[in-house]
Amino acid sequence: MKKFLFPFVLLSFLVNPAFAQKKNKKSEEPLKIIFQLTTDDTLAHKALMKQLSNITSVEPGVQIEVVCHGPGLTLLQKSKSTQKAKVAEFAGKGISFKACEFSMSERNVPKEDILDEAGFVKAGIVHIVRKQREGWNYIKSGF
Amino acid sequence: MKKFLFPFVLLSFLVNPAFAQKKNKKSEEPLKIIFQLTTDDTLAHKALMKQLSNITSVEPGVQIEVVCHGPGLTLLQKSKSTQKAKVAEFAGKGISFKACEFSMSERNVPKEDILDEAGFVKAGIVHIVRKQREGWNYIKSGF
Amino acid sequence: MKKFLFPFVLLSFLVNPAFAQKKNKKSEEPLKIIFQLTTDDTLAHKALMKQLSNITSVEPGVQIEVVCHGPGLTLLQKSKSTQKAKVAEFAGKGISFKACEFSMSERNVPKEDILDEAGFVKAGIVHIVRKQREGWNYIKSGF
Repeated sequence: MKKFLFPFVLLSFLVNPAFAQKKNKKSEEPLKIIFQLTTDDTLAHKALMKQLSNITSVEPGVQIEVVCHGPGLTLLQKSKSTQKAKVAEFAGKGISFKACEFSMSERNVPKEDILDEAGFVKAGIVHIVRKQREGWNYIKSGF
Repeated sequence: MKKFLFPFVLLSFLVNPAFAQKKNKKSEEPLKIIFQLTTDDTLAHKALMKQLSNITSVEPGVQIEVVCHGPGLTLLQKSKSTQKAKVAEFAGKGISFKACEFSMSERNVPKEDILDEAGFVKAGIVHIVRKQREGWNYIKSGF
Repeated sequence: MKKFLFPFVLLSFLVNPAFAQKKNKKSEEPLKIIFQLTTDDTLAHKALMKQLSNITSVEPGVQIEVVCHGPGLTLLQKSKSTQKAKVAEFAGKGISFKACEFSMSERNVPKEDILDEAGFVKAGIVHIVRKQREGWNYIKSGF
């Protein structure tokens, strides 16, 4: 009987700590937030900047990405953004800003008009959904 | 000793490929996107149609459902929709459109006024939350 | 051979029901919905109250939390809310309302101006993201 039980006892030691570790790892992992910005409302842009400031002040290890598409593209346009200094400041702190190439094409926004700190994604919504699948949590920006 | 280890070796072959397969399957699975539309802004309706076109062009196997409730119901109303042809076109390609019955009742919208291509759900938000639990990723439509 | 197989047969009985139970538990668990309210549009506030009524009528065990930040704080302000009676009614039925302290500070809203039924969170978005990580499903309120 002892001989029969031994594999199970061993198995429980092998398996349980693995599960426990996985669970702890999840809750200790830094937050990963994917923002969707689709509005050209400059008050909403200003509010988002304030939120980024607040979030990073209480969650130092947080990972944040802001995906701008449709009218939200204006946050990242050199010719239109009212938040250029803030975008540059947050990009310097590791926050990622992404412009949707589909939206750029539809709105005739050339790459040269996008802030140097921003990156590009082919399709904003597809990118956001893929990020959600990788464990990022989604927040829709705007009012 | 050899006899003792054999079950574990076998077990590792049985168990590990299964886990590996599950993980790969997840990332290879088609995207499943559940849109929530709550606005009667016809520009937002037009933007959503453009997004559906863009997403399906880069993600051929994607599954999409659009849940319309509150003022968003207008997208699916024969008497009000500005996107009837597009809704019919996308429904023909497998995209699902759902009208919220609670919203229909509150807004006195009879079933006959809902586009023939659309289906019905009792409560829009409950449906969206259930879909999220089944692994669909949520996107709030509108600006 | 029989002796060799026995642990596996036993293991399958031990392991499979556990997985099955976990899966069933998930789908039987009450829905947990975390709403984000960021607008001061009183029509959106009224619509949210109607949604809470509808959802609880079809999902008796549902858990709901409404996080108010930015202009959405007005739903919970004694001096501004148009839905005081409804908030009190739903709070009495177990729905949780939370005011964002960052937003209160930025908008000079003192604690005394927040409805007695509401609670407080330091940073609205961080709270919403943590809830999502705990398995709550996110819905952005408003149109």
